[in-house]
Formats: sequence, structure tokens, C-alpha cells
Amino acid sequence: MTNTTALKQYDRIIIGIDPGTNVMGYGLLGIIGKKPMMIAMGVIELNKFESHYLRLRRIYERVAMLVDQYLPDEMAIEAPFFGKNVQSMLKLGRAQGVAMAAALAHDVPITEYEPRKIKMAITGNGAASKEQVCEMLRRILSLSPEATAMKLDATDALAAALCHFYESSKPLQSGKCGSWKEFIAKNPQRIK
Amino acid sequence: MTNTTALKQYDRIIIGIDPGTNVMGYGLLGIIGKKPMMIAMGVIELNKFESHYLRLRRIYERVAMLVDQYLPDEMAIEAPFFGKNVQSMLKLGRAQGVAMAAALAHDVPITEYEPRKIKMAITGNGAASKEQVCEMLRRILSLSPEATAMKLDATDALAAALCHFYESSKPLQSGKCGSWKEFIAKNPQRIK
Repeated sequence: MTNTTALKQYDRIIIGIDPGTNVMGYGLLGIIGKKPMMIAMGVIELNKFESHYLRLRRIYERVAMLVDQYLPDEMAIEAPFFGKNVQSMLKLGRAQGVAMAAALAHDVPITEYEPRKIKMAITGNGAASKEQVCEMLRRILSLSPEATAMKLDATDALAAALCHFYESSKPLQSGKCGSWKEFIAKNPQRIK
Repeated sequence: MTNTTALKQYDRIIIGIDPGTNVMGYGLLGIIGKKPMMIAMGVIELNKFESHYLRLRRIYERVAMLVDQYLPDEMAIEAPFFGKNVQSMLKLGRAQGVAMAAALAHDVPITEYEPRKIKMAITGNGAASKEQVCEMLRRILSLSPEATAMKLDATDALAAALCHFYESSKPLQSGKCGSWKEFIAKNPQRIK
């Protein structure tokens, strides 16, 4: 399923990334019509590299390789915005930055989602555990036991891709189910 | 001075980067023997891009282009570690990350320096103003008025490259002038 011919069956391919400085998860989602399917998923182990730069390099190389291999149309990235100190946020920003660079270098547009948003999109509960997210993915995408036995960073990344698929399939693309009041406020030009 | 033949006169080329989310500075330093010379310097204006991703993309493309063009042996990056909130540190981390990715993709090793360290290396005063750093660079590198009339982000980046040259030329490479006491403490294996 990794050659270009096999990839052509998909209308869209979304790469989901869950960047971390210890483990980075990735998941490739292929869409046929309205049906999402898992193409590939996995983790990039970074703990073995002592140097911060070697870790960043590994992230860049691996994401660039995935982009070359699967030719995704879009990237969805899990991006927490709060709750960490400035030091860890700087490191996280760098990890996100090198992953994004691999996408930007290949003209792949990026959308980021907060963890809570992803959990809500997949499970209906913004405070769901990683295990609950994994279980829902298993059901929605008919994942094999081998796939779900991976580190939860992999399912988290796949969840980001699936969240992006759901969000981009919404007619309003407002990022959440809006009321008419919200719709009118956001689209004054559409009121005649 | 940008063709490969002209670049061959230098024993080493160091690219200095001062990454920011509004303006990014860069400076190329060529070394012949023990003499540092400015090869090129400038700024990447990012304010014109509204989207955060377009800014990151511009940083990546421009740094990748500079690395392709000048084939630097090393990268020195100005990296503040404190004094900002988590939001701005995440953004700064991303800007640093994409700039680093451009170097990592070309096997260029990266060293980072805190602003205070760079100011100390260039002016002898860790609290020096950007103008003072610029003035010292003008004298050390015989910069033209045109060069020093650029935005100070450019001279800051060149200062990072020069700081790296000074630091990497020190026999101990300990990162600062150490006393014998420090030397012994750091190198117990060398005491016989």
C-alpha cells in the first residue's frame, strides 16, 4: 500500500502528527468518498538520541520521508497551547517546527488542533483518556489488534488526522457546530 | 562572492541566525586562518505574512536557500531561554525549529547561544545594547555603512556567528574562560 499506484485510490490523504520530544506519533489516513481508512501509523522513538539536535533531525527526516512516501494532501498536528512551562514549550515548539518544515517544504498545508478538540471529535468527550481515543479509532477505522497495540502516540496522531477529516467535512468549517446566531454573525454577507 | 569558487577561499563558513516571528536576521561569516570576514547579511521580513504558517515557510525556504548558496560548515543560533510567556516561547520554538530543520537537512551542525553570551563575546558586556554590538561588529569586521544601516536583527545574527567563531577557537571549548580550578573540576581524568 505504499506505492504511488496504491495511493491513487484515495481521494485525499491526511497525515496526522503528534509531536513530542521523547516520542513522536504519526498516522496516515486515506479517504475514499466519505470513508476514512488507516494507511499507516507508527511512532518515532527519540529517547535513544541524547542530543536535542539529533532528536530534531530524526523528526525532520522521518516526517520528510513519510511525506515523500505517502504524498499527503494535508497535515493535521496535535498542538497543546497551555499548561507547560516556557522551557518545555520552547522544546515542543522546536519539535513542531521541524515537523512542520518537512510539510511546508512539500507544500502540504497544516492545520493544528488542541488535544481537547481532537478527543471531542473522536469520542464526544474532550476529557477522554488516550485509551478511550484508541478504542474509538479501533471501531471507526476497524484497526487490527497489532495497530492498537502500538504506543498511544501513534493512535493520538491518527486521531488528529481523523479529527481534521471530520472538521474539514463540515459544511461551515467553523471549527465547531455553530448556532444560526453564530452563523449569521460570522457570515453577514450571506444575509439578504 | 556567492559562487562556489569564491567561497573556497574560506577555511570555514559560519551562518548566524537570529530567529524571530516578525523579523529574522542572518549573517554569513567566512574565516581565513584566524581572520573572520563578513560574506553576507540581511533580514527576512515576516510581518507581511499574516499566517503563522506562511511565516514559518518563509523562514524555512530562506534559510534553506542560504545554506544551499553559501554551504556553511556550522550554524550559530541566538536562542533566548527565559523571560517570555509559554505562548511566545512556543512560537519562537517553531521559528527556531524550521530554521534548524533547514540546517539539519543539510548536515550542518548547530550551536545555540544565549543573547547575553553573544553580547559578552562581542563587546565584553553581557548587557550591551544592540547598537553597541553593531558598532563593535563594524570595527572588528570593517563593515560598510550600508551593512550597519540594516536592521539590527542582521547584525545580531552576524554577532551570533562571530561569537561561535570565538567560542570554537578557544582551546578548551568550555564555553567560557575558566579558571584552573574549573578546568581541574571539569577534567579530573587529566590530573595525574
